[in-house]
Parts: sequence; C-alpha cells; structure tokens
Amino acid sequence: MGDPTSTSWQALVADKRRRQAQTIPKEWLISTPSDTELTVTDVPATCGLLTEKELLITSSDVDHLLKKLASAEWSSVEVTTAFYKRAIVAHQLVNCLTEIFVDRALARAKELDEHLQSTGKVIGPLHGLPISCKDQLRIKGLETTMGYVSWIGKYADKNSALVDILYECGANPFVQTNIPQTLMWPETFNNVFGRTLNPHNRTLTSGGSSGGEGTLVALRGSPLGIGSDVGGSVRIPSVFCGVYGLRPSYGRVPYAGALNSMEGQDSVPSVFGPICNSIAGVKIFMKAVIDSKPWLKDPLAVRKKWDAEAYGLEEHGHGEKLVFGIVWNNGQTVPHPPVIRALEMTKAALLAAGHQVVDWVPHRHAEISKVVNDIWSAGCVEDYHSVTNLTGEPLIDTMLAEGEVLPTTFRPESDASSSTFQLWQLQKAKLKIRQECLEMWEETAKTTGTGRPVDAIISPAAPYAAPPHGKNTDASYTTVFNGLDYPSCVFPVTRVDPVKDAKKPPHQFLSSMDETNYNLYDPNTFFNAPVGLQLSGRTLEEEAVIAMTEIVDAALRAQK
Amino acid sequence: MGDPTSTSWQALVADKRRRQAQTIPKEWLISTPSDTELTVTDVPATCGLLTEKELLITSSDVDHLLKKLASAEWSSVEVTTAFYKRAIVAHQLVNCLTEIFVDRALARAKELDEHLQSTGKVIGPLHGLPISCKDQLRIKGLETTMGYVSWIGKYADKNSALVDILYECGANPFVQTNIPQTLMWPETFNNVFGRTLNPHNRTLTSGGSSGGEGTLVALRGSPLGIGSDVGGSVRIPSVFCGVYGLRPSYGRVPYAGALNSMEGQDSVPSVFGPICNSIAGVKIFMKAVIDSKPWLKDPLAVRKKWDAEAYGLEEHGHGEKLVFGIVWNNGQTVPHPPVIRALEMTKAALLAAGHQVVDWVPHRHAEISKVVNDIWSAGCVEDYHSVTNLTGEPLIDTMLAEGEVLPTTFRPESDASSSTFQLWQLQKAKLKIRQECLEMWEETAKTTGTGRPVDAIISPAAPYAAPPHGKNTDASYTTVFNGLDYPSCVFPVTRVDPVKDAKKPPHQFLSSMDETNYNLYDPNTFFNAPVGLQLSGRTLEEEAVIAMTEIVDAALRAQK
Repeated sequence: MGDPTSTSWQALVADKRRRQAQTIPKEWLISTPSDTELTVTDVPATCGLLTEKELLITSSDVDHLLKKLASAEWSSVEVTTAFYKRAIVAHQLVNCLTEIFVDRALARAKELDEHLQSTGKVIGPLHGLPISCKDQLRIKGLETTMGYVSWIGKYADKNSALVDILYECGANPFVQTNIPQTLMWPETFNNVFGRTLNPHNRTLTSGGSSGGEGTLVALRGSPLGIGSDVGGSVRIPSVFCGVYGLRPSYGRVPYAGALNSMEGQDSVPSVFGPICNSIAGVKIFMKAVIDSKPWLKDPLAVRKKWDAEAYGLEEHGHGEKLVFGIVWNNGQTVPHPPVIRALEMTKAALLAAGHQVVDWVPHRHAEISKVVNDIWSAGCVEDYHSVTNLTGEPLIDTMLAEGEVLPTTFRPESDASSSTFQLWQLQKAKLKIRQECLEMWEETAKTTGTGRPVDAIISPAAPYAAPPHGKNTDASYTTVFNGLDYPSCVFPVTRVDPVKDAKKPPHQFLSSMDETNYNLYDPNTFFNAPVGLQLSGRTLEEEAVIAMTEIVDAALRAQK
Repeated sequence: MGDPTSTSWQALVADKRRRQAQTIPKEWLISTPSDTELTVTDVPATCGLLTEKELLITSSDVDHLLKKLASAEWSSVEVTTAFYKRAIVAHQLVNCLTEIFVDRALARAKELDEHLQSTGKVIGPLHGLPISCKDQLRIKGLETTMGYVSWIGKYADKNSALVDILYECGANPFVQTNIPQTLMWPETFNNVFGRTLNPHNRTLTSGGSSGGEGTLVALRGSPLGIGSDVGGSVRIPSVFCGVYGLRPSYGRVPYAGALNSMEGQDSVPSVFGPICNSIAGVKIFMKAVIDSKPWLKDPLAVRKKWDAEAYGLEEHGHGEKLVFGIVWNNGQTVPHPPVIRALEMTKAALLAAGHQVVDWVPHRHAEISKVVNDIWSAGCVEDYHSVTNLTGEPLIDTMLAEGEVLPTTFRPESDASSSTFQLWQLQKAKLKIRQECLEMWEETAKTTGTGRPVDAIISPAAPYAAPPHGKNTDASYTTVFNGLDYPSCVFPVTRVDPVKDAKKPPHQFLSSMDETNYNLYDPNTFFNAPVGLQLSGRTLEEEAVIAMTEIVDAALRAQK
C-alpha cells in the first residue's frame, strides 16, 4: 500500500486490484461468457463449479437454510462453501465483490458447526448463515475502502455494531460488496473496483449504491445481504435486480462504527437494511437485529422492541380488507410501460385477494426530493474532497459507460454549499412538508370506509426498470421516503416484456424530465430487466410494512 | 398591535402590557407585599382571595385532583377557578404569566362538567385538570409572542399537537407562562413581559427558559405545567423552584405546531416535558400523552407505546437493589455546599433503602457541553436577528437586574456562524462522544455486581441553588444530557441552610469557572433557595427514569 501521499492513486489501485485477485481461489475461476452474453443468471448453475448439493443449498431461501443449519442437516461449512463459490462466480460475471476472505469465513463456519455439535444449541437466530455486507460495514482486521482510493489500506480495528450483532446471532459475514464512489449515486462504479453490472442484462445498471449486494443476491451468491439507503440505495439495486429490499426507518438498524459519506449529516440519515430473495428473509433479519437490542451498541438506535402486535397488523384490521393507496406517477415523471403494468398487476392481485385499492396522489413529492438533495448539497462537495484530496483520485462525475462523456444532473454542485442557518431553513421546510404529509395520510381515514387511514402506499421505486449504465438519473421515487422517513420495502413483480410493454405514443409531458424519460424507453433496451415496486408505511412501522409486503407478495403469487 | 413596521417596539410592548392587564379580573387583584419581602410562597394562602376549599384544591397533587374530578366530587369549574385565582396571585408576586384567558378556560371547564354529568364518563385521563403551558405552545385563537416584540399580534390558527392531545385527554389549558427572549437563556426575562422572580427568594432567578412554569407550579398556581428543554430549560427552573420536572428524550412528547427558536436545528432538538409538584403527576402526564399516539400528529414523535414493563423496571432488577452512579462534580465546576449536601443526603437515603451507590466519573462532559453550544452558535444569531429585526427590538445581552451592566458568557457570538460542512463536523464529533458514553455505561456491567450496568445516574442539575438574577451562567450540568439525549428528571431534596451549608475554604480550583463559582457562594445570598438533583437514564427510557425517580423520592421521604 505504501504512503498514499507519495504514491500515485493509479498505483494504489493497481496494488489493491492485484491483492484482491490473489484472494480468489484459483480453482474457483470459471471460463467466463463473452461480454456479448447479456444475461448471466444461469451461469452459476451451468458453469460446472458447483455440485448438485451446492446448487440446492444456494437456491434455498433464508428460512429454509436456517432450519437445515439449526438441525445440522447442512453444516455451516457446507453452506458457506456453497455460497462462497457462487459469490466468486457472480463476481466473475458482474464484478460485485470488494473484500474476499474465504479462509476466515470457513474458519468461522467450522467454529459454528463445532459449537452446535458440542452443545446441541445454535449460537443465535442466524446460526451458520453466510451474510454479505456492503463495503461500509467494518469487520475487524479487514480493509474497508468504500470505493475510495484514499481509503485503501484502512483496516478496521473493531467491528461495526451491526457486524457485532451478526456474530452474536451466529451469522457468518463472508464477503463485502461493491458501491459507487461517495455512495451518493444510484449506480455502482468507483476508481478502485470498477463497475458492477446487472446480471439480467449486463448492459444495464445494477443500480446503487448497494449494487454489489443487489447483483450478488440476485445471482444467489449470498442468501442475504446488507445494504444502506440514504436516497434509495437498498431499494434501487433490489428492484433493478429483481429481489426484495427493506429501507427501515432512521435508527431501527444500528449504523455505529460503519464508514459513510457525509458523516455528521443528521438530517436525512442513511440506514442499513436487508436485501434478500424472499420477504421471509427480510423479516428474519429485522427481528434478529431488533431482538439484539441495538440501542445498547449505538446511541442513535431507537429503543423499540420487535412489536409482534404490529407484525400481526393490529392497527391494520389484522390484515383483513386492507386499503392500499397506489401512486401511478409522482407528478414529475410517468413511469415506463412495464412499471405501469406492474402497478396494474399488483392492483388486480390485491383486489382479487379481497383488499381495497385507491389512487394515492403524492403530496409535494418534487419538493421533498428537492429539499433532500439541497440538504446534501449544502455540504457534500467539501466532504467528498476531504477524502479524494488525500490521494488526488478524481471525483467521478458520470456513471456512463467508458467512452461516453455526458454530464449528469444527479451530482450536486459545489456552489450549492450553504451556511448552517441556511441549512436550518431547508430542514425546517422539510419538516413542514413531513407534517403536511402526516396530516393528509390521517385525513384518509374519512374516505376508506374502514375507519382507518390508508394502510400502506404502493408506488414505483423508479420510473423505469434498470436503465443502461449512466442513465439512472432520477432517484426521486425512492428519495421522497427517505425524506419522509417511511419504511419502504421493494418486491419483484414481473419482467420487461417486449410485447406487453410496447412503447406508447407520447403523452402530455409533466416536465422536461418526463420527456427525457419517455425518450429513454424502448423494450429492447430494457431486455429481460426485472420490474418491482415498493410498499411504504408509517415511520417506525417496520413490522407492519413487512407483514403487508408479505400480503402483497402472496397476492401476486396467487395470480401466477 | 398595528403594523409592526410602522410602530416603535416600545409602543407595541405598552399596548401588549395594557391588554394583558385587562385580562386580569379586578376582583382577583391583591394587595401585594413590598419588594423587600423576599419569600412569597405563603402569600396565596394568606392574601385572603382563595376560600378554604380553593386552598385545599390548589394544595392537592395531580393524582388526587384527577380522582376528585373523575368522581365529580370537585367540578372542573371549581378546580379551574381555584387554580386560576391562585395563578393570578402568583403572577402578581413573581410575574409568571403571559396569556390569561379566564372566560375561555371556565367555559371549557363547564363543558367538561356537563359531559361528565350527562355521560357519566370522563373525556380522558386528564379530565378537568387545568394545565399551564409555556408561551411556545399554540392554542387556537390565542396570541403567542414567545417573548418577542416582533411576534406581538401573532394569533394561532390551530393548536399545537400537544395542545390537541391535552384537549383530547380532557385537560384544560388555562394560562401561558413566561420565558426569556430567544428561549436560549437559563433565566426568564424578555422585552414584552419582563422578568420572572423566584418565589422562594425574589432576589434569585426563577431559572429558565421555563421560568414562568417553574414559579407558577411552585406557588401551586398550576397543578401541572408544560415546559421545554433544549439545554436544561425544564430542569433548571424546576430545580431552582423546588419542584419535579422531566426532560424526555427527543420525540417522546410531540413538538409539532409549537413556536420555537432556531427552527430547523435538528441536531439537539428541544423537547417538551412536565413540571409538577409530584413525581406521580409526571408519570400521569407522560402516560396520557404517549397513550394518545402522538406519532399520528407529529412526524418526529417516536412510534413507541408506553412500556409498562419498562416502568416495572424489568431491565433493572424490578427495582430491587438498584445501582446508582453519583456525579459529585463534572470536572469543571465543584457544586456549592448545599448541592453537595443534597448528593450526600440522597446517597444515604438510597443506601438505607438497600440500593448501591457508586461514584460516576463523567466522560468528556466539558466537551459535550461545548459541542452542543457550538452547534447552536453555528446559526443562532442569524435566527434571532431574523425575528428581532422585524421591529428593531433590542437583542437582550444580559440577564442581570436593571442597573447592572456586565457581559455574560452564555450567549453565543455572531462570529461563531459556520458552514454546513463545519456543522457536520460538530455533529460528527458529538456522535463520537455519545458512542463513547454508551460504551462506557455498558462497561459498568463488569463492576456493579448485579450483572447489569449502573441503573441510573444522579447528578447536580446546576452547581448551585438558584443564583441571583443574571448569575446563572453555567448550564452545563443539564446541557450534557440534551447532547447525550438521556431522559432526566429533577426532584427536590432540601433547602439552603445557613448552618449546614457554610462556605468552605477554597479548594484547588478545576477551572476559572470553578473559581468564579466558588466566589459566588454565600449562604445568605442563597437564602431559602430549594436544592434538587437530577436522575438520568438511557435514551427513550422515560418509563424507567420515572420509576427510579419515584424510588429515590420515596427513599428521601423515608429519611425525613
């Protein structure tokens, strides 16, 4: 590594990439498909590296895995090996990993197996489960660069609080996953590790900032991953990769001891949340973390027990005859045909299951999205430069594929920096809108006919399925719920279909963004892209949001 | 009122004071004692205005009042009249009221009585109880100036969320109480309403910023008052006036719709809390508010039910053999002899009741206090001027009694304003200390012998009893717990005693502040001043803090 001040940033990157390559067991290298193979989701099963049993293990969901592990029918070493092999395959296909530490993970798995064998008891509710972690969570003894060249050589002297909890629960953190530089992009590319591709169509973005997690879980290289979400960074890659992902409320999952961008920015905090192939896995993770009393490890973690009554939907008619509000568009951008079709499919499924569906008109979503971005912009550029200046690595200003050079509107400008007093005015404006949104939600009790307000909101997580690299410039469908602090869970619904999702004639555009978005669409561009939606509830209502997502998920499956 | 831009601020004040005087029923004016009468706590009983029954009512605590009201043995009209008369007497003695609205409060009381009579049921858990509100809480149709000349004529078009909850619970908000200009002083004086005096010794400060509440409750002109606390503003007046006061954690009691200083300052938020003559009243208020689901009215209110198990001290050995940590001093200022004696009395009482008491060494309290003040200073002066500039009213720069002109160190300087990025660094530094304090508290589990960490911290709420006007320059004993977000409840212990609390010879001073503080002390100066302490627990542990304060309170009473 050397002294970053005396070594070029390119040399630091070359060294880090060389060291990363060395951590990959040679016998796990596969003959990779050519770049023209767009879809690589079948490769783990067809490449020949994984045994039949390993394929069975890695195709199992979290609840099934935990049962097999707790009964010692499958050992943690077996399960960890299977997922590790598949993760390495995934990495060769879409470039999703950052830190790789096979021996250490297998040693931990062996300890877990020995404990179960000698005591007959599991360590905790996640016994033996390999869990992948976004490259922000610190694991003692490992390097965490967070995609910054300047942080190459930054080794953790202690675990993040959430990693401690994973260990206490018996889990096995086994890889770390790729992110964009600064984390403040809804795509995944940085100077250290490069770009993460979407396994359903490698010309499309994986989303971000938890793009490494989204792709790894989609390829079943991990049964459960931990992402973070400050503006959609769990939900966007989850929905673009066709998996489940929860953005919990501020402070429900501990953040202490993790690396982050814009530390000290307390107004719209980033949160950790699970990314998983099943909604059951999302619940298992959240309950395990909350039952571990994270407030004893993190001063910002909310002292609030797992609420079984809330999960039983006691405040939502016990899950009978729910009323869902559907957001067809946010008033700025009309979603592409596959997203509209996903909304229609979900509405039909819910009606068929005996629930009500009403239209939900978003209140001031454009302004919420703007004020959140203005708050970040008030200090972010100084923050980014405080890190990149250490080595002189360039601050990335586009996520477009190499060769293309186009400006993006996503990144804040340095002249947006403000005084504290100006920041307070932004924060005050944000609170005023949150108050209005709360009052409007409560008002709906007058019209639902159930005596309750609308139970949950279903909305697009983006106005499109995964777009091509560099084209994911509108994160407002997710960012609004960071601003409002609504727990939001994304779930897969369908896939882009060239017939069902033909391009429509132009509509009356809501904005210039809307026109740009309209022009972006062509079913061929979005070939094979998954399509999902998000379900949002009230602040700190994680239990109910999970339970209602289970209901929506079951309703959709019943239609298939 | 007129147009503030065309009227001098002095004229606005004169008009407001004239209008305030008109709201006081002439028949409730008393012959006030001369200014040389220091102690006025007996005057309500001796002035002849209140009947025997009214004296009985106003000397009753909240739990007793609620029983009598619910059984209709005492009508709400009777109770409201009694407290209103006593509040008006109190006002004539110490200048504690801002808004006075007798007819309206009596009309509300009449409605409550009629409801109980016709339905046989109370409206809610606070049925018929008059409650005083700091001049920040907005009551529809009433003026709320918050002590700013510029806000004279600002009438509320809707209730604050907490006021709505009070009404829903059957309470009767009946007066509003005095505050310092800007709220950011631990004393009570503003250009509109003037200064509030301490009823135990009128040469001493009432404390602040909830000084109107502290004095009104101490004179039993209100059974329960609502103050706010951003740096000690509930606790300081409560302890200086010899009553109970709780500073809840951020978001446990709703703040929505109230006026405030530095709106948008989200880092160390102000919180509302009860001020009361009994700890039982504190519990009744908190449970009533939380049971009302304030999160349905305020987006920042934490969705967290009243936790009966936490109140039963399930995580604290069910209240048996508790371990209290005592802070003898904060490393900066040694408290005056009466405060040290209060700590010793409390320690002895707890030991006699079978609990453990250990010394608690505060971790980086000076730095916490500084970083909190730096955060406020980063934008406060622009905030204050944005209001005072509207009329040109002077920004008050001393709380000393008229005639004296001395600078104070309390107020932040305008050149302390900072950029957002600098603010984020302060916020990051604060979080780091909070993390350390949490880890150190958890560490104490290794040494208590109970298997649990120390259960609660007992500390001074100030290094002195109520000092003379303008001399309350050290709020650090309370501010640290705003920075750490520990719920903290103050309770009365004793009174300054010229014999037991003789001045001691100089000690090795911890700081120049310590020397100044030492020189301030003379038992005669502090004649008759109450002395109290504060008990602090973990963030969002209001239930346990109240239960443990009950235990301390009972232990102290058992010694008397």
